[in-house]
Amino acid sequence: MRAAQYRGEHRITVDEVAATEPAAGQVQIAVAYTGICGTDLHVLHGSMDSRVTTPQSIGHEMSGTIAAVGEGVTGIAVGDQVTVMPLDACGSCPACEAGNGHVCQRLNFVGIDSPGSLQERWNVDASLIVPLPASLSLRHAALVEPLAVACHDVARGRVAAGEHVVVVGGGPIGQLIALVARATGAHVLVVEPNAERRALAERLGADTLDPIGADVPAIVDERTGGAGADVVFEVAGVAATALSSPHLARVRGRVVMVAIHAQPVPIDLHRVFWRELELIGARVYERADFERAVDLLASGQVPADELITRVVPLDDTQAAFEALAVGDAMKILVDVQGARA
Amino acid sequence: MRAAQYRGEHRITVDEVAATEPAAGQVQIAVAYTGICGTDLHVLHGSMDSRVTTPQSIGHEMSGTIAAVGEGVTGIAVGDQVTVMPLDACGSCPACEAGNGHVCQRLNFVGIDSPGSLQERWNVDASLIVPLPASLSLRHAALVEPLAVACHDVARGRVAAGEHVVVVGGGPIGQLIALVARATGAHVLVVEPNAERRALAERLGADTLDPIGADVPAIVDERTGGAGADVVFEVAGVAATALSSPHLARVRGRVVMVAIHAQPVPIDLHRVFWRELELIGARVYERADFERAVDLLASGQVPADELITRVVPLDDTQAAFEALAVGDAMKILVDVQGARA
Ligand SMILES: [Zn+2]
Ligand SMILES: [Zn+2]
Ligand SMILES: [Zn+2]
Ligand SMILES: [Zn+2]
Repeated sequence: MRAAQYRGEHRITVDEVAATEPAAGQVQIAVAYTGICGTDLHVLHGSMDSRVTTPQSIGHEMSGTIAAVGEGVTGIAVGDQVTVMPLDACGSCPACEAGNGHVCQRLNFVGIDSPGSLQERWNVDASLIVPLPASLSLRHAALVEPLAVACHDVARGRVAAGEHVVVVGGGPIGQLIALVARATGAHVLVVEPNAERRALAERLGADTLDPIGADVPAIVDERTGGAGADVVFEVAGVAATALSSPHLARVRGRVVMVAIHAQPVPIDLHRVFWRELELIGARVYERADFERAVDLLASGQVPADELITRVVPLDDTQAAFEALAVGDAMKILVDVQGARA
Repeated sequence: MRAAQYRGEHRITVDEVAATEPAAGQVQIAVAYTGICGTDLHVLHGSMDSRVTTPQSIGHEMSGTIAAVGEGVTGIAVGDQVTVMPLDACGSCPACEAGNGHVCQRLNFVGIDSPGSLQERWNVDASLIVPLPASLSLRHAALVEPLAVACHDVARGRVAAGEHVVVVGGGPIGQLIALVARATGAHVLVVEPNAERRALAERLGADTLDPIGADVPAIVDERTGGAGADVVFEVAGVAATALSSPHLARVRGRVVMVAIHAQPVPIDLHRVFWRELELIGARVYERADFERAVDLLASGQVPADELITRVVPLDDTQAAFEALAVGDAMKILVDVQGARA
């Protein structure tokens, strides 16, 4: 079989490798599509070399069909269309024991800490399988994982119908959060300086605002009768937006810190105190988020085709990473079984 | 009557002033005791000159006896022992309309934005009165307001019986938070470098830790079976503890930001993300917090005498402020009706 493999030093090669049988408790998936995201880019750029062994297939946003079933696996059959929730929890740490296995203190993130889906045949633990309804195309189903991230963010923010939501940053995750918040019944404003991203957010049904030269807190106050937003999502991931986001929230509002800030950044704790805000951390997803993402896609509430910039064959994996790195795409899918170039 | 009045420029004088009758809707209190706190010190040091008119009596932690009742006031009688919840909300801003009047967007904090209790006869709106049970001495009742702050902080942290709580900073508010958390049934560790403050915390029933040279996160992990604390209170108010406090919390733990940081401080949002923490702002109190504070004092669950460093006559008000400023006291009460020096 063929596999796109990270080799270190910013390099991905497509190689012929031996397929192995699924072990007891595993299933083998014929991977259909694998989406590429910012985390994968971090791997390619070497930031996760301490966690990734080389050569290794990465990739964790995927869809596929069950090709074989290992010993002892029940309830899953060859031919089933599936996706994978790529979180392999230890089951025995304090976080797992408290029911928070998705942020297990010894979490194995499949596709980083163990091999991912950029290969034609992928063996994974059967417990990670999430079944897909027949009405959902495999192409759209490759969006389940990033959409589950957004479902989790919206759940952590406790967004309710009728609430005012501001999404700071209109990249892939910001667009999905805006979509899920709208599907929840919220009024959504996406704050994003890039005109193309604003245009996409508008096609997806959100209001938008170019923050350059604008008094964003005043505009949010005006939209909300002087109250401020119920929930703010900080997705831009720069120090300036981490500092300014709490200034968009109402008294007792929630600010969900979605973006990853590798270094400590200045936060205006006086604002947090003055308005009794909550700053909320959100990481990956729980099974309920995955199931909600499947439902949203299967019911057509998420315009998946608007989000998929293009689909490329496995041979073009490295080029797809490079296009994503320069911001030349919202979401690129790799057609893992696609014909050789 | 006599009144201690802030005159600007770090000065408080004790003056003979005319008492006025309570207006319609007001009551007149013969103030018994007024406690001095960090907020009062900020006023004396000029940080709140934009909010305080001079000369003005400040003071908002008090107890007293109703001396007169204005027109239209019902349910309050001359001779009743009372305290005051010093929050005068506008009633019509978005925060008030959402039921969060304690953090009203146009809040009048009585004792800063309007005259306070460092005067023999104090007229206040009857709606701010909190009745005291006969079993509670007026001396102890002067602690209701700061104890209500601690009750509010513990409520904002959703502390539950059996949980592990870490209080970072053993000043007056930290000690009270530790007491309330213990009264709630939590296991409490107070982290404080000052030996006298640690000794007080231990007399009050908490475990203590000197952070100097200690690996505080490792010690908290050890106390909690590797999980981390359920709730951390950041009360020290220095940049270093704002940065380190999230590292003491378990997965999905709560970090209550009690201390006031006038300037933005670096926060490790990566830790907030990784453990899905909540950073929670807490300001003043609600009526339920005031009532809980009265109950805790009246039932003897709070050893009030341990907390009151000394009681001084009105003439010594300025000296009391100065002692507090150099850390020479936990809590000083001014005996407002006390004999002239
Ligand atoms: Zn991803
Ligand atoms: Zn675990
Ligand atoms: Zn005070
Ligand atoms: Zn108000």
